[in-house]
Amino acid sequence: MEPGPLGGSRPAERRPCLSSRLGADRAASASLLSAAGAEPGRRPLAVAAVLPAGGCGERMGVPTPKQFCPILERPLISYTLQALERVCWIKDIVVAVTGENIEAMNSIIQKYHHERISVVEAGVTRHRSIFNGLKALAEDQPDSKLCKPEVVIIHDAVRPFVEEDVLLKVVIAAKEHGAAGAIRPLVSTVISPSADGCLDHSLERARHRASEMPQAFLFDVIYEAYQQCSDYDLEFGTECLQLALKYCHTKAKLVEGSPDLWKVTYKRDLYAAESIIKERISQKICVVMDTKEGEEPVGHLLEEVLKSELNHVKVTSGALCHASGDLEQIISEQCYNFVCVNIMTSDFQETQKLLSIVEESNLSILYPVVVVSVHFFDIKSVPLSQKMEDLMWIREFAKEVRKRNILLCGLLICYPQDEQKLQESLRQAAIIIAALIKERNSGLVGQLLVA
Amino acid sequence: MEPGPLGGSRPAERRPCLSSRLGADRAASASLLSAAGAEPGRRPLAVAAVLPAGGCGERMGVPTPKQFCPILERPLISYTLQALERVCWIKDIVVAVTGENIEAMNSIIQKYHHERISVVEAGVTRHRSIFNGLKALAEDQPDSKLCKPEVVIIHDAVRPFVEEDVLLKVVIAAKEHGAAGAIRPLVSTVISPSADGCLDHSLERARHRASEMPQAFLFDVIYEAYQQCSDYDLEFGTECLQLALKYCHTKAKLVEGSPDLWKVTYKRDLYAAESIIKERISQKICVVMDTKEGEEPVGHLLEEVLKSELNHVKVTSGALCHASGDLEQIISEQCYNFVCVNIMTSDFQETQKLLSIVEESNLSILYPVVVVSVHFFDIKSVPLSQKMEDLMWIREFAKEVRKRNILLCGLLICYPQDEQKLQESLRQAAIIIAALIKERNSGLVGQLLVA
Repeated sequence: MEPGPLGGSRPAERRPCLSSRLGADRAASASLLSAAGAEPGRRPLAVAAVLPAGGCGERMGVPTPKQFCPILERPLISYTLQALERVCWIKDIVVAVTGENIEAMNSIIQKYHHERISVVEAGVTRHRSIFNGLKALAEDQPDSKLCKPEVVIIHDAVRPFVEEDVLLKVVIAAKEHGAAGAIRPLVSTVISPSADGCLDHSLERARHRASEMPQAFLFDVIYEAYQQCSDYDLEFGTECLQLALKYCHTKAKLVEGSPDLWKVTYKRDLYAAESIIKERISQKICVVMDTKEGEEPVGHLLEEVLKSELNHVKVTSGALCHASGDLEQIISEQCYNFVCVNIMTSDFQETQKLLSIVEESNLSILYPVVVVSVHFFDIKSVPLSQKMEDLMWIREFAKEVRKRNILLCGLLICYPQDEQKLQESLRQAAIIIAALIKERNSGLVGQLLVA
Repeated sequence: MEPGPLGGSRPAERRPCLSSRLGADRAASASLLSAAGAEPGRRPLAVAAVLPAGGCGERMGVPTPKQFCPILERPLISYTLQALERVCWIKDIVVAVTGENIEAMNSIIQKYHHERISVVEAGVTRHRSIFNGLKALAEDQPDSKLCKPEVVIIHDAVRPFVEEDVLLKVVIAAKEHGAAGAIRPLVSTVISPSADGCLDHSLERARHRASEMPQAFLFDVIYEAYQQCSDYDLEFGTECLQLALKYCHTKAKLVEGSPDLWKVTYKRDLYAAESIIKERISQKICVVMDTKEGEEPVGHLLEEVLKSELNHVKVTSGALCHASGDLEQIISEQCYNFVCVNIMTSDFQETQKLLSIVEESNLSILYPVVVVSVHFFDIKSVPLSQKMEDLMWIREFAKEVRKRNILLCGLLICYPQDEQKLQESLRQAAIIIAALIKERNSGLVGQLLVA
């Protein structure tokens, strides 16, 4: 029942709220949202969210319920909580899990530093779980730290990619209409079978929509609907908007959602989610060099080649000296990939400094952080084998930082005097770095690769 | 318009037909299928397939039409053709692509050795493309090598995971009912919006289904329907079953399909398809040793550890001497992963032999083949750096075989006398091998990894 500890931790992807990151029309909506509660004597609009997460994931074909399936070793539900948490105007998030999973859920909240989360016991069906969440928010519950919100969002634990944008839209529409829900165009034609298993008729695709999540309701409307509705509804119903219509005569406003709203249903969806998450955290690479040794051009050459070879990836550079604050800034902007240039082949000081900073930052709590320790060598002056021998300590070091979700690899780059060959080595290095960042496979940590 | 060349090539995943691989009930269906055409004076049931592939993939958000998007460097449509081709009782496969893609389509057919494929020009809508495919199959077309089939399957180019099982079911049902189509339960509730963008009503999920592909028809039924139907149908319709109902009063039989039938629609579906394909070709590893040197136990030790560490992966071993035929058998069963044990650290003969056999087999035409060249070393007798130096030639060799879609890496395994440490090394080796096979990332070819 307790939210995660806060001491010293700053979960990643905490983003500035609303108007600073949304465009002009979204900023206008944001002010609508606060204006809605800004009449004299009223509090700002109070919004909470309920996440039913009591399902057993039978369609997934795996023994773990899908909301607890790991993606990059972190349970799916933690990504969904993260998506809701970063929306600062959602005050409370109530998660309904089965009794046997309450302890696991509390561990997840603690491990990943989730905030503003309350855990309640799920019912045997989706509607019963949502009802339990709503009850926990209703004011008449004794010993609850939760307050009854004006608007409640209902979302699925297995839709991790929900954006603030659509949450805002459904909340504003719910404030106005009493209920609102995200919809999407149908991917397949919907048909109605006859009793003998033949086609009776097909529905016109353009006149129908898939009802997705999130949905939002005036709390009093949906709570009333759940209190009124029949056992049959609670057992077999699937659609909250329908309950609001049937029991409160509230016609929900429908809001067009983006493809991101899709629900992790089958095993293939877990694969897709993992790929999307890997792609998202691979969009930035920071090339770290100690600026005190700025005379050395190889680091900058590598940075240039990374920029030209890896399209769509933002390559920045940061200095290691604490005073500049560069790196802290980059880390705070959620960069999960570092290429650390060590000037002397056998030297590891830069990488060690970087690893300390990354560890202190808690950056690796939510996602594995890739660190590639780069070392240049001139094949003519020292044999490659000697260089490799010098760098073998990286294996032990990688084992150590792996425990803190940091994936460390070494990369030796051949540094010939020949300009063309150097460019070839650097391009090869960029391909290897891209592979390490893209796959984020912990099986390769501690390896010393050669470009 | 030409099918791919056949000389010397044997596309992978060509499987024995029907009854030999299907269970008792499927075998029964198979005999039904042949019985349907076995009356005196009649040919066996003639089945063809039409694949509309003229879409532009606007929902994907990428410039390449989705059916041509690469998965492991091979276009998606090639996987779908492969799925249809391996069903030996489908006589002709007609693919409809836009004029500008006909050349690309012919190259794909040639490069991946596809058979029984004819290419026709797509229309501007899905229905027009299907109609063009049907016209090519109709007997009255001059200079066509195609014959009018009794039953025609219609499938999507972007549903690559269709199984013979469901194709057989829709064909048998179409023979009996005139039309048949695969259906799936709805993932989301379907709703009907009112004109003002609010919820009018939601459909009962249990009484509706998503219409998927494949579908099958008596050729005369669906061809008649397309000849009769209006321009409006051809422009805006989405459902072939509906055309058969409307214009030929044929009520399609609905067949429950598996989740595999899903359609690659969004970018996330491409990610999912790639992961599924990678997973499928990672289910078998063959550990290759030269049996002439059978005294050496390390290879067998590694095999044992691979078996115990990699669950769900079938580990077999094969001998390199041509006479035994072991390896040819394993290759013919579509094993795409090889761990080649070289007895002497610096020796590469086993791996070279293996690479020749793999190249000759054409195994790597459809999927990248992973070869891990394993070398053992005793750290006490020779320094690691010396061993690594000895093996550096692997880089050049890997570059060479990469051109033929073979991904070669080296793996040095520390072989200490201490039993416990040896087990640790072997476990580490298994983790590295699993990573290389799972990711199949060409950026890491030629690297020499250390366990």
